[in-house]
Amino acid sequence: MDASDVMGRALHKARRARVQWAIWRARRAGAIIGENCSFADVPRFGDLPCLITIGHNVALARDVAFIGRDGGTHVFTRLERYRKVIKYGRINIRDNCVIGERAILLPGVTIGPNSVVGAGSVVARSIPPDVLAAGNPAKPVMTIHQYAEWALAATPDYDEAEFARDPKAVLMRMHMRESVPMRFQQKGRDETGR
Amino acid sequence: MDASDVMGRALHKARRARVQWAIWRARRAGAIIGENCSFADVPRFGDLPCLITIGHNVALARDVAFIGRDGGTHVFTRLERYRKVIKYGRINIRDNCVIGERAILLPGVTIGPNSVVGAGSVVARSIPPDVLAAGNPAKPVMTIHQYAEWALAATPDYDEAEFARDPKAVLMRMHMRESVPMRFQQKGRDETGR
Amino acid sequence: MDASDVMGRALHKARRARVQWAIWRARRAGAIIGENCSFADVPRFGDLPCLITIGHNVALARDVAFIGRDGGTHVFTRLERYRKVIKYGRINIRDNCVIGERAILLPGVTIGPNSVVGAGSVVARSIPPDVLAAGNPAKPVMTIHQYAEWALAATPDYDEAEFARDPKAVLMRMHMRESVPMRFQQKGRDETGR
Repeated sequence: MDASDVMGRALHKARRARVQWAIWRARRAGAIIGENCSFADVPRFGDLPCLITIGHNVALARDVAFIGRDGGTHVFTRLERYRKVIKYGRINIRDNCVIGERAILLPGVTIGPNSVVGAGSVVARSIPPDVLAAGNPAKPVMTIHQYAEWALAATPDYDEAEFARDPKAVLMRMHMRESVPMRFQQKGRDETGR
Repeated sequence: MDASDVMGRALHKARRARVQWAIWRARRAGAIIGENCSFADVPRFGDLPCLITIGHNVALARDVAFIGRDGGTHVFTRLERYRKVIKYGRINIRDNCVIGERAILLPGVTIGPNSVVGAGSVVARSIPPDVLAAGNPAKPVMTIHQYAEWALAATPDYDEAEFARDPKAVLMRMHMRESVPMRFQQKGRDETGR
Repeated sequence: MDASDVMGRALHKARRARVQWAIWRARRAGAIIGENCSFADVPRFGDLPCLITIGHNVALARDVAFIGRDGGTHVFTRLERYRKVIKYGRINIRDNCVIGERAILLPGVTIGPNSVVGAGSVVARSIPPDVLAAGNPAKPVMTIHQYAEWALAATPDYDEAEFARDPKAVLMRMHMRESVPMRFQQKGRDETGR
């Protein structure tokens, strides 16, 4: 264990503490967050944590955006007819969901239970239970059953005990490291390159 | 008012100062930014602020990306025929527009006036006036008139004076806080979980 | 050269050093990164740099996300049947590709060679060689040949020597700075605005 590992561990511990603190603050501000949730990074619950409900056993990847208020009303609220218009909505992530990296959750959506939102998705309408949804706007792509069977079929045989001990070694054997092909010919590149 | 509120206020003030400073620097670097614009967070105008025009009364949400130069030309400029190719374009946000969180604005697009770009949209082509546009690539979804009427119909009755004083209390009454359903049964989860 | 320029240069130098350090660390953790790659900002290779292969002469814009592991399996691994399921995949960017700002690369994709991924794209399936791909999910939009011819036709005549010396002056002449139109009438805005 060298200096880099020690630093990595310290950073990891510090991040866990910041995650706990972010959750504590969000709950204090009115968010409902269930038990046994996992957060890949310090979550940012946005300006309106009181409009967020997260169930139990939910996994959130990095940089998920919670947008509890539709700011687009700004464009017409100067008109007398629409003066009172506000557009807020509760974001409701139900039990056992997974929200992918950089997903954006818009006001009023309910996700799941047991659904997966793909990375980079924009969830503008509610996602039904037991589906994998993705895209902009996010739509169901397949059922969780199909997804699970697909993933099961694609999983190679591996030694669980070894994987728990040293995942990298197992992965390196699974995915052959391709050699980088010969360098591309690059005449005249250096003068014009950015 | 406890310690956390005091800190929140101080951070808010500091952020406003940083927003002002970012705008001052962008203008100094050649950006045109109109009056009465609001910024949810410190804007990042990218490497080419001189190619940005923002009208009056524009609202920008967090993390809007301004891309004034198409870097994809890198892939062919090593060839003699395309040696001189550059691809830059002015990003022109016209009056009274709203740009949603994490929107990406590509070179040469004009937005609005009076248009809304949804959160997470990628604006690759110009957005006409008076529409709500969203998606990747962003396309008009409805007119602002339809959007305003829809939002008006969806707005519940509320007390404006109270909302100005304590928005959270009003919102909490509007959106019933759902109770989190009973914990999902999770046999065998702890051994396999990540 | 005033104080702001001096600071800008120092920051630029510091960023270059951080880029070099990030690449060194990623290689040490098992990433394969070719020569002559350019990075617009400090790259974040995610939790699994050992599953990343980047060829030669690749350009990465800011905030590209490398997702080497599909976390969605979390939703079903509590079931005995799927207990052993894991879903990892090598991300393989081949020679001479350009990856746009905020692109998300999902496990198991191969990109290029000679392909461009547009800003904000979500690459869920492999991108063939010699195409411009964009969208969520990313799909080929046109060939690089079409893209290059289009860019060539759109490039205005300019003085290369002057552009190398002072790009901003040349750009300002190309893209006429539009004047911001007269201020929008805003009756009743101040009372209702956010």
